[in-house]
Formats: sequence, structure tokens, C-alpha cells
Amino acid sequence: MTIENLKKMVLDANLELGCSGLVKLTWGNVSGIDRDNGLIAIKPSGIPYSDIKVEHIVVLDLAGKTVEGRCKPSVDTPTHLVLYNAFADIGGITHTHSTHATMFAQARREIICMGTTHADHFLGPVPVTRVLAKEEAKEAYEENTGRIIVERFDGKQPTDTPAVLVADHGPFAWGKDAMDSVKMSIALEMVAEMAFGTMQINSEKQSIPGYIRDIHHGRKHGPGTAYGQQTDR
Amino acid sequence: MTIENLKKMVLDANLELGCSGLVKLTWGNVSGIDRDNGLIAIKPSGIPYSDIKVEHIVVLDLAGKTVEGRCKPSVDTPTHLVLYNAFADIGGITHTHSTHATMFAQARREIICMGTTHADHFLGPVPVTRVLAKEEAKEAYEENTGRIIVERFDGKQPTDTPAVLVADHGPFAWGKDAMDSVKMSIALEMVAEMAFGTMQINSEKQSIPGYIRDIHHGRKHGPGTAYGQQTDR
Amino acid sequence: MTIENLKKMVLDANLELGCSGLVKLTWGNVSGIDRDNGLIAIKPSGIPYSDIKVEHIVVLDLAGKTVEGRCKPSVDTPTHLVLYNAFADIGGITHTHSTHATMFAQARREIICMGTTHADHFLGPVPVTRVLAKEEAKEAYEENTGRIIVERFDGKQPTDTPAVLVADHGPFAWGKDAMDSVKMSIALEMVAEMAFGTMQINSEKQSIPGYIRDIHHGRKHGPGTAYGQQTDR
Amino acid sequence: MTIENLKKMVLDANLELGCSGLVKLTWGNVSGIDRDNGLIAIKPSGIPYSDIKVEHIVVLDLAGKTVEGRCKPSVDTPTHLVLYNAFADIGGITHTHSTHATMFAQARREIICMGTTHADHFLGPVPVTRVLAKEEAKEAYEENTGRIIVERFDGKQPTDTPAVLVADHGPFAWGKDAMDSVKMSIALEMVAEMAFGTMQINSEKQSIPGYIRDIHHGRKHGPGTAYGQQTDR
Repeated sequence: MTIENLKKMVLDANLELGCSGLVKLTWGNVSGIDRDNGLIAIKPSGIPYSDIKVEHIVVLDLAGKTVEGRCKPSVDTPTHLVLYNAFADIGGITHTHSTHATMFAQARREIICMGTTHADHFLGPVPVTRVLAKEEAKEAYEENTGRIIVERFDGKQPTDTPAVLVADHGPFAWGKDAMDSVKMSIALEMVAEMAFGTMQINSEKQSIPGYIRDIHHGRKHGPGTAYGQQTDR
Repeated sequence: MTIENLKKMVLDANLELGCSGLVKLTWGNVSGIDRDNGLIAIKPSGIPYSDIKVEHIVVLDLAGKTVEGRCKPSVDTPTHLVLYNAFADIGGITHTHSTHATMFAQARREIICMGTTHADHFLGPVPVTRVLAKEEAKEAYEENTGRIIVERFDGKQPTDTPAVLVADHGPFAWGKDAMDSVKMSIALEMVAEMAFGTMQINSEKQSIPGYIRDIHHGRKHGPGTAYGQQTDR
Repeated sequence: MTIENLKKMVLDANLELGCSGLVKLTWGNVSGIDRDNGLIAIKPSGIPYSDIKVEHIVVLDLAGKTVEGRCKPSVDTPTHLVLYNAFADIGGITHTHSTHATMFAQARREIICMGTTHADHFLGPVPVTRVLAKEEAKEAYEENTGRIIVERFDGKQPTDTPAVLVADHGPFAWGKDAMDSVKMSIALEMVAEMAFGTMQINSEKQSIPGYIRDIHHGRKHGPGTAYGQQTDR
Repeated sequence: MTIENLKKMVLDANLELGCSGLVKLTWGNVSGIDRDNGLIAIKPSGIPYSDIKVEHIVVLDLAGKTVEGRCKPSVDTPTHLVLYNAFADIGGITHTHSTHATMFAQARREIICMGTTHADHFLGPVPVTRVLAKEEAKEAYEENTGRIIVERFDGKQPTDTPAVLVADHGPFAWGKDAMDSVKMSIALEMVAEMAFGTMQINSEKQSIPGYIRDIHHGRKHGPGTAYGQQTDR
């Protein structure tokens, strides 16, 4: 992939996020990675979605050194870098403060699998991180935010449950590329909103049966996937 | 009806669903049936609503054999087929994960008739199915989903209450044709949202009196219907 | 006012309602009255808002006899007629099933004045009617719906509190003309939504002090009104 | 700054507010100040957002005397004047009845800092004023509304927490200029909505740790700000 193509993909994904209803003002950011060349591209800091052009997209290497672009990258860039370095199979990351996912993050509550919409996208609960300790926060806030996400996925496969709630902050979601991570953010917000309401209608509601969860997750993922078109339409 | 007309009707109904605010991403699907020719048409799997063209619509017979179309039909097609075979008087089916109807489905709670908006569209509670047993789910998940819907309507007239909540999953609604089933899905979502709020304002609220329910349902249905225009406008 | 002008005003008000976000499908209706000629104009029954043209608007006299128009008037027309006959100072009526106002109607709970947004539009609680008795409902449902609204305003000035919640049904709002009644419906929905949330944050919340209520209501109404432009802008 | 530029800035900010989803009908108003010339510009009273032109914007001095414009200024102008006179460092003020912020105002509950979205914009709780006493309300309602806001910020830096909830009424927010105050109103509404939901998911939720709050607030404010672009893009 050329750098120009990477930037274009990340621009498109940020524009999609800007139109998704998930973000207000300049909140949120999307990045994507070119694994072959070890380059990530990310939204610039503080520019309104409607104003972002391809030349604003910032390209960095995996150590965080800017390779191309004159803008400052998103303030959350160190978090993205930690995730790309730790999760070898992800190709894109989206961070939002989407309303209902952020409510759960602020409440420090994981989102359990209350229905098949959840199972279609996330295998098991969407986890919530711990809160950063004072020293961790002061030393390297954004980088350590990435580290507590990685810590939370210890022993889990990040692509099985491609989202996390950072306690007191909000969600990060990932996917096979930048655009896919935006879709996971959209799915997460819906899943959070529906879980929120389900709990109010039936406060005893538990996770759905594992055999239903596995069938739904399998329909959209893995070798036996039944969903979508395999060939050109 | 020609196959082309059937496909066009189902395309239009899917586009209407795509604009309704009830679906995110590629979720949901609408089908319609030509009873005379025993053919159903349905949305292709996993194609964004904004991209669906008439050539993507898949036509099948009532046994589920594809008659026309090169796309894979919606993964929920077996559920639609069971419903068309069991409910002789329905002409269209819409499946969504609309927010509030899905909350009730996930909570495994029927929606009782709390007001006249409900009675205008649904006679009595919108029922919720049981959860599929492990063997049923593993054997033929989508087909058995159809079967537990049919089981739930045993002794009921499906056209009186043209919607159901599949437990842990979401709603299916039906109507006299594909477009009418989209309208029932829109009505169901509103009815669910208003029931959700009504329960929070007054947790003791019961169903409305039967005589009010019957008058409202009768205004929009049956021989003495008072609603709408009878002739060309 | 000519009949054509009356129809045009009522058309515009219905189109405004159609764009307000308060109605789904063909739900809701707006009417307006020309007091000098004793004529009311109202939305036709069951026609989508986007399709309504001036020739669909139905004109009736105060006894309910159609004077002009080939469409059937809204099924709720008898309710509008009772209100115009009983409330001499109102010029327009809007009926909706707007989400939060209908929640209160279904919950059979009046909306008390929890803030100045309420006081700006409605003096005192927005009242809720009783439920129609079986005989009343069977005999003349729509007309008797109007009568229980009038009954509920016995001893009140309808223009002070230009809205009501019909129990188990939904709101009617009125104003000095058709368009003004649409605005009152928009205000009522916001007032209902904010009351709904206020009760959840603070279940002990009572009405605001009467002296604040009176100042706010007075700013928008009556001889000493401070709000809006008095002259040409 | 010329008067024309001041009016144009305030017009733009009012149009932005009109498109923000935060206001219904003619509710709400934005003003801005030219400190050098001691002039403020404000929205006219009761004109729909879509109709406001630059010639409708009213310019006043800090004593409230109209300097330019034939329209009546917003009825809330005396409140704005008190704030500009008391808070020397603010350049713009926005008043809305935005849904969730108004719910907290009506509930007479401050919004505590439940997450980093809050901390990004507001240092500490968004405070709520007391209710005006009868004499204060009758004597000079709008002016005294300003005074109880100023009273509530006694000992606080208004630019640290650029918003307040007027009890039983709704929010005022401010910023470095008119447009910035609109952005603060948008942020406040989101913060209120997310706090509302957080409380329902976890009724025990307390403020976030002070060291997280300070890092987030510092990222967007003050000398060491890490957010946004410093130079031309």
C-alpha cells in the first residue's frame, strides 16, 4: 500500500465516523495501519470532521515518529500505538465518546452479552479497564491508557471482542482496517444502548446462552461464516 | 405479478427500511411474496442499504431454492420461509434490530397494550418467543427461529398482531406486502419506545380497556375501517 | 379569509408537523378554523405528510358537514369539532402521538410544571383526561374524546394551558391558529421529555414556585408580554 | 473589531446553535462581546433561527443601551449583561434549554464529573444556582438571574467551569467568544446526557479521581495544552 492510499483510507474512515452520529465537535479519532511498511495514519488533533483533508492526516512509524504530515496527530496517538504494537492482528482503531458506550465506561461496568446483536460482533462481555494509578497517569497518560487495555486483554484474543471501555473515559474499538473499526464503534454504541434499556426492563437479565452466542458470532466470523457476499456481486 | 415487479417492490421496501432510522450498517432485511407464483424475494446478505440495486434482490421458491439472482440471500431467509409457509395471509416480512423492540426481546418481555398507538396496529400484547434449545439451535438455527415464532402464534391470528419478539434477538413484523411490513416495524419500534417510558413513569400501568383497544384496532382494520381513503384521491 | 387561504394555512401547518420529528407514518393531524365563516379545515385521513397537497385538505362547517374537498377528513375530526365548539378562543388544533407526551398519557399522569420551559407555554400542569366509559366509547368514540377534554377544562381557561393528554391515547394541543398549535405540540413534547428525565434524577421534584411560573408565562403571553418583536423587523 | 464583524460573529454563532440540535423553535440565544469597545451583540427576541439575518442582531453597550439594531434584543439580555460585567475573561455566552442539561437544572442537581468528557471541558461539577426569592424575581427577574449565577461562582474561576445550571430553568455556558460558547453548550448537553445514563447504570458512581480530571482538563486548556493545532495547518 502506498502512503497516499493509507492516508486516503484513514481519511475516509474519519469522514464516516464524522457522519455516524457517534461524535460531537472534534471528539474521536480513527487510525489505520499498513503492517507491511510498519506505518500508521491517524486523524490530526482538534480539526472538525467536515474540514479534514487528506493532507491533514498524519503518518507515523510504530515508534511514534512522524513520517509525513505537518499537523499534530491526535492527542490519543500513543494509545493507538500501544494497541498496534500489542495486537498484531488488528488493522484499524476508532476512539469515540459515543453516548451509551461512554455511560458504561463512566459507570465502570462491562457490557454483558444480552442479545444476538452483541454476539454478532463481540464474543463475551465488552470489558472495562481498571482506572490508571496516579503515577501511571502522570507519567504517560495516553501510553498507559493503551497498556491497561492490553493488560485487560491478557489471555483473550482481541479480534474476538474488538472493543473495550476505558474506565471513566470511553470506548476504543478495532477491526481489520480503519473503516471496519468505525463499524465496530457503531455496533458497540447500539449494543450499549440496547443493554442499557434491557437492564431497565428486566434487571435480572443475564447473558444469552453460550450456544446461541457462538452460532451468531460464527455467522459473521471465521471460516464457516454464512454472512455477506463471498464473490463479486 | 412479474418477477421484476416483485423484486422492485422488495427493493423499495428495503430502501424504505434503510431510510427509516430503524437499522444500522447492514442489519435487518425485508422480503415479499407473490402467492400466485409461490415466489419470495429478499434482501441480499451484508450489502449496505445505500448500495442495493434491483439485481441484488434474490428470488426463491417456498422450498428455499434460488430462482433468480446471483447474490446470497439474507442469512435469515429460512426464518422468512417458515413464516410464509405457516402464515397464509401475510405478504411481506421485515426483520430489524430496532432499538426499543430489541430491548424488550432481550429482556424477554412481551409488550402489553399500554395505549391506542399499540391498539391501532397490534391486537393484544406483542408476544415474545421462548429461547431455542441447544439442539434446535445447532441443528437449524434460522429455520427453528421461524418455528418458535409459529409455535408462539398457535391459536392466534397472525394478521391481528403482525409482529413478534424473538427472545434474546429482536423483532419480526409482517404485513399485507413488503412495504406494509416495514410500516409495522416502524409502528412496533414506536410502540416499544412508548411502552418503555410508560413503565418508568407508572410501573403499575396495565393494558388499556378491551373496549378501547377494539375500537382503535377496528378503526384501522377489518370491514368497518374508518381510516384512510377508500377511493382515488 | 378565503377558503383557499384557510386550506393553505392548514396545509402548511400539517407540513410543518410532518417535518417536526413528532410524527411517524401518517399519524397525527392539524386543523385550523376561520371563525368569521364558521369553517374548519383539516388533514385528510391516512395520507403521508410528504404527499399532502392543498386539494386534499378537507373543509367542514362546525356541525361536521363537508363543505369542500373530496378526501375523507381525519378520523379524529369529531374531536376537533367538539373542541372548536367549546373553546371559543382557539384557532388551531394539533393531535400527535409524540413520544414523551404519549408516555405520560399512557401512564395517565399529568405533567406538572417542573421548569420555566413548561411555564413559558403552559400555566399549571398539563392535565390528563379520564378514560372513556364503555358506553361513551361505543356510542361516539371520537366525539366523546372531545367531550372528556372539555370536561377536564371545566373552570379552566383553555388558552392558559393549551394542551391536554387523553388518557391511554396521546396529546392534543391548540393555539391561536393551525401553525401555533403545531408549535405548542413541539413545546409539549420537549416539556414532557424534560419532565420525564427530571423525575428520574430527582424523584421528589415538585412544581416550580408560582411566582417564577407567572413571570415566565407572562413574558410570552398577555398584555405585558416582553417576548418577540412587536413591529415589522 | 468593527461593529459589523461583531454582529457577523454573533450571527454565525446563533446559526451554529440553530443547527446544533440543542434548540427547538426560537428558544435559546447567543451573544458575544467586543471588550475593546465595550459592546455586546445578541440574538433578537423570538425570531426563528432560520430567519435571522445580520441586520436583526442587536448591539448594546455594557449598561444595556441599544447602540445599533431595530429589533428587540433577547428577553434574556439583562442576564448576559450581568455576566459580561462580572466575568471579565469571557467573550461569548450561550443560553439554551437543551434537553439533558435542563433536566439537571429542573432537578436542581449539579452535574458531577463522571468522566473525562466532563473533565475535558469543565473543571469540577457544573454548579446549579439557588432559586430566586419572590422579591428578586418580581423586581428584576432576568438581571437577578445573572446575579445568582455570579453569586454561585463566588471564589471560582468562571473560565475553569464555563457553564452553570439555573435552577428550574436551564443552562448558560460561556467561552472565549460567541462560537466557543456554543461549543461549550454542545459539550455540556453531552456531558449531562452521559451523566444521566451513568447514574442509572451505577447509582453509586462518584467523581473521577482528581489526577485524571486535571490531566484531561490540562490537555485542552492552559499553557501546556496538548490538544489541537498550534500553527497554520
